[in-house]
Amino acid sequence: MSEAAVTLDGWYCLHDFRTMNWPAWKAISTEEQEQILAEFHSMIDKWEQTEADELGSHAIYSIVGQKADFMLMILRPTMEELNEIESAFNKSRLAEFTIPTYSYVSVVELSNYMAGESEEDPYQNPHVRSRLYPTLPKANHVCFYPMDKRRTGVDNWYMLPMEDRRSLMRSHGLIGRSYAGKVKQVITGSVGFDDWEWGVTLFADDVLQFKKLVYEMRFDEVSARYGEFGSFYVGNILKPSHLSRFFHV
Amino acid sequence: MSEAAVTLDGWYCLHDFRTMNWPAWKAISTEEQEQILAEFHSMIDKWEQTEADELGSHAIYSIVGQKADFMLMILRPTMEELNEIESAFNKSRLAEFTIPTYSYVSVVELSNYMAGESEEDPYQNPHVRSRLYPTLPKANHVCFYPMDKRRTGVDNWYMLPMEDRRSLMRSHGLIGRSYAGKVKQVITGSVGFDDWEWGVTLFADDVLQFKKLVYEMRFDEVSARYGEFGSFYVGNILKPSHLSRFFHV
Amino acid sequence: MSEAAVTLDGWYCLHDFRTMNWPAWKAISTEEQEQILAEFHSMIDKWEQTEADELGSHAIYSIVGQKADFMLMILRPTMEELNEIESAFNKSRLAEFTIPTYSYVSVVELSNYMAGESEEDPYQNPHVRSRLYPTLPKANHVCFYPMDKRRTGVDNWYMLPMEDRRSLMRSHGLIGRSYAGKVKQVITGSVGFDDWEWGVTLFADDVLQFKKLVYEMRFDEVSARYGEFGSFYVGNILKPSHLSRFFHV
Amino acid sequence: MSEAAVTLDGWYCLHDFRTMNWPAWKAISTEEQEQILAEFHSMIDKWEQTEADELGSHAIYSIVGQKADFMLMILRPTMEELNEIESAFNKSRLAEFTIPTYSYVSVVELSNYMAGESEEDPYQNPHVRSRLYPTLPKANHVCFYPMDKRRTGVDNWYMLPMEDRRSLMRSHGLIGRSYAGKVKQVITGSVGFDDWEWGVTLFADDVLQFKKLVYEMRFDEVSARYGEFGSFYVGNILKPSHLSRFFHV
Amino acid sequence: MSEAAVTLDGWYCLHDFRTMNWPAWKAISTEEQEQILAEFHSMIDKWEQTEADELGSHAIYSIVGQKADFMLMILRPTMEELNEIESAFNKSRLAEFTIPTYSYVSVVELSNYMAGESEEDPYQNPHVRSRLYPTLPKANHVCFYPMDKRRTGVDNWYMLPMEDRRSLMRSHGLIGRSYAGKVKQVITGSVGFDDWEWGVTLFADDVLQFKKLVYEMRFDEVSARYGEFGSFYVGNILKPSHLSRFFHV
Repeated sequence: MSEAAVTLDGWYCLHDFRTMNWPAWKAISTEEQEQILAEFHSMIDKWEQTEADELGSHAIYSIVGQKADFMLMILRPTMEELNEIESAFNKSRLAEFTIPTYSYVSVVELSNYMAGESEEDPYQNPHVRSRLYPTLPKANHVCFYPMDKRRTGVDNWYMLPMEDRRSLMRSHGLIGRSYAGKVKQVITGSVGFDDWEWGVTLFADDVLQFKKLVYEMRFDEVSARYGEFGSFYVGNILKPSHLSRFFHV
Repeated sequence: MSEAAVTLDGWYCLHDFRTMNWPAWKAISTEEQEQILAEFHSMIDKWEQTEADELGSHAIYSIVGQKADFMLMILRPTMEELNEIESAFNKSRLAEFTIPTYSYVSVVELSNYMAGESEEDPYQNPHVRSRLYPTLPKANHVCFYPMDKRRTGVDNWYMLPMEDRRSLMRSHGLIGRSYAGKVKQVITGSVGFDDWEWGVTLFADDVLQFKKLVYEMRFDEVSARYGEFGSFYVGNILKPSHLSRFFHV
Repeated sequence: MSEAAVTLDGWYCLHDFRTMNWPAWKAISTEEQEQILAEFHSMIDKWEQTEADELGSHAIYSIVGQKADFMLMILRPTMEELNEIESAFNKSRLAEFTIPTYSYVSVVELSNYMAGESEEDPYQNPHVRSRLYPTLPKANHVCFYPMDKRRTGVDNWYMLPMEDRRSLMRSHGLIGRSYAGKVKQVITGSVGFDDWEWGVTLFADDVLQFKKLVYEMRFDEVSARYGEFGSFYVGNILKPSHLSRFFHV
Repeated sequence: MSEAAVTLDGWYCLHDFRTMNWPAWKAISTEEQEQILAEFHSMIDKWEQTEADELGSHAIYSIVGQKADFMLMILRPTMEELNEIESAFNKSRLAEFTIPTYSYVSVVELSNYMAGESEEDPYQNPHVRSRLYPTLPKANHVCFYPMDKRRTGVDNWYMLPMEDRRSLMRSHGLIGRSYAGKVKQVITGSVGFDDWEWGVTLFADDVLQFKKLVYEMRFDEVSARYGEFGSFYVGNILKPSHLSRFFHV
Repeated sequence: MSEAAVTLDGWYCLHDFRTMNWPAWKAISTEEQEQILAEFHSMIDKWEQTEADELGSHAIYSIVGQKADFMLMILRPTMEELNEIESAFNKSRLAEFTIPTYSYVSVVELSNYMAGESEEDPYQNPHVRSRLYPTLPKANHVCFYPMDKRRTGVDNWYMLPMEDRRSLMRSHGLIGRSYAGKVKQVITGSVGFDDWEWGVTLFADDVLQFKKLVYEMRFDEVSARYGEFGSFYVGNILKPSHLSRFFHV
């Protein structure tokens, strides 16, 4: 038996992708649209208060292409809170005009492959805390994709000795770090929670950096031999002030 | 030919996942909603009587993310009873406001890999009986996923000698046992009944234990080389007293 | 080139799986429901006459879980008759309240791996005839699944010498025979007719025997190395006298 | 680099599979049904004139099972003509009562593996022309499936030397030829046009010959090691004179 | 770690495939259809102005078969502009009569495998610029498909040394170049943006050249061992002057 990596786990995370039913939305009066958006804005206001209180975070992005029109990404301390926010949205008037297209349930995760030998409680380390309980950046662009580590034939990540995995992850991490300042990564673990093992959410002001980062990593052995990837979603930030334009018909 | 493991089989099991059609639900009057929920509660009352009589068990959980809004898990002594409960639910008023999203048909199973040499009839052993005919725990959280043992190339579980499989399962079982008190596992067999070979239903008060358990097991050879997994569903308990809030719009 | 197995082929076979649109069914009057069921019963009466005349056979089972509500299995001497029965059902009033979920087109098949050296025309052998043109049993339970023989890498059934295949099938057949009296198997071939190479329909009074049989076979090399399986459907018999209860809302 | 096979290409080909929306069809008056079918018959009349002029060909078959109710197969000299026929059908009254379920775009193809050394322009050879620009037979039954040549690991068709592929195709072709008079094959190439590399359309008066031919070929190395197959469709001829019965409700 | 190829990236690209809801379109008056098409034409007029200003390009093609009725291909300097065009189309009256069937998000890409040793900034090279910021040709036909480079077992493109990949791509490129004047290729990269690594869009006046090119490439080692392909779409040009015929019912 191979030694399992221990992880540090922070806030629970829901990615929720939706497509608008534009014909139905256009069929109602401007007044009704405004009431519905006011309800949605008051929901966002609560989320912003939670973020200001450092009790969670969220991000809203439009998505390019037919996979979805927008994505909500919500971080909260408990699975129950995620479920309540999801439920409140589903019961809102706006949800009547949306079609769910994909969702992902996970928890912010730091792997300990790089862990030092310190006896300190990592959950008390301020740097670690800021990564486990992050305020999501307001970057221009988002990229989300789920992934697995491969377990087939000779390319079986989970059969590798811990030391080999640590060494491979170290070189993998170097690529990520070379994009510091350009791409912010939020890794969320989803083993036991959803269909892939991890979700990767990237934030950048220059959308091309997503392609450069993911492509460069693909030549790294961790991705080249062991990475299996789900669907990729790319989008543009939807600040609250953008919403009226987004929903304007 | 490799020697087949003999299994002990208990109650039949149906997992039934549903999404709510919230717009339709919101469109009816509060009075009508209450009548519909009263019908649903009377169905649950019967299930609770059955559970009190130790003639079956059930669990109701909300599900996080878009895969479903809630899951019914029903255990009964016969396939006919499962079918009747499913049919009664489908014909109920509430079902008109739900969309079926996934189901799983199986039977509670204990593998005999660990069986002693005793000549005792295991079906008379009280410990075995309590596992074959369990009352499902009222834990805060549930996790469900179906799985297969792999049969490709050199990673062919079904071609391994019995002794190798027994040894591998023993170490695998040790991981599960190390979570005793934290995670309760109900294994159900579905060979010949549904599309995967087993269903795994986990119960825990701390949802993070699902991730820790499944992730730790993934490094164990049984999962690392031989495990193939379907979709994962995670959720929060819906006690009868929670239902009015769940359905409140 | 590997020597192809010659098969004996009997009646053509259609498995037709349907889900009920219960809300629509509930929305019509009891009187209308009765007229619709009378039309369906008259269709079944014709099928029963055909079965009595030994010109075909049929079976009707409810299906457990969301994959379908019921399955029609129809055997007839020609593909045209299958198509006519399917078409008549599709045009019936009841079909308006059903949603097709899966179907399978095949022909009853006996493989000749076990064939003796006899020069007798097997189609004149009464035992062979009773298997090629069977009257389907009225067992309590049904199990249906489609399957392929694998053709990848070293596990390539179709590249094995005839003698190896014969030997493997002999031991495989012994498992099936050990369930004689408990499980009745109807093998139908679908190469050139549908997406898998064979359909397997099992009948048993004790539903657990399906699991035991399929699980035991999975350790046999024919399944372990060469079997690829589609979806499994399991159900309970719907005798004509059960139908009024099944459709009662 | 392996030497590419050169192909001869004839008429473009569209297979178009449709299911009837029977409830909607039944809901209109007999008079309206007759007007709609008259429009459809006038479309078929044009296709028959084109066939009589040897400027194309077509076939209409009912399909057994839920995959479709009928298939249109259309051959024309240009991709634009296929598109126009498809568009005209989509805009017709009958199409309002059909649901598209599958289609395939390809071009009639003869591989040159068997080509002689002749310097003759094969497009002027009458035998070749009759195969590239065929009038489709009015056989009782049709079978359609798409296929690929495998390109994985050691079973990589496209890495084989030309001489090996020629030799394999020669023995493969012998099986096809042994069914001369029983099964007529139309091979259409779809590389660059649709999701598989070839479409295979078989015509026979005895539907069982499809199963015998495809099964026998499966033991031939070309299929056993290199063949990957999509969905199989099987059906019965729908002559214009059959249509009133087919659509009668 | 294998050396990553550096790429040159040009305009962002959206492929948007749509099917018409013909019954709904036929149900409105000719006058309403004309108003809707006038709105669509004014959208196209803007796109043509952008193309004339060399600030983007676009192409509109009908698609053969049921996968879609037409495809919009849009090139723009930013991801935001793509999203705005998509959003404007989705909010238009015509979109109410279309069903989205597939889309692809990417960016025009030139790989540097063939790059010289020049120290010139390639983005200032007029030839490179014309390929990164192309005006799409008005060819009679289009072919689109997404693709990956394989990463399994011994066929792992991303584990090959740079020099091997360069040499393989060189011979691969020679095939493409031998179709110069017959097929124009636009390669777009989609790592981090969509589900495959590249999109390939081919333009040709003779539709058969797509088949010849893709088939010839399939025997080249880059495709034979390392190419994995998604769905293929083939279509005919829809010039603005063709649109009234296309939408005429």
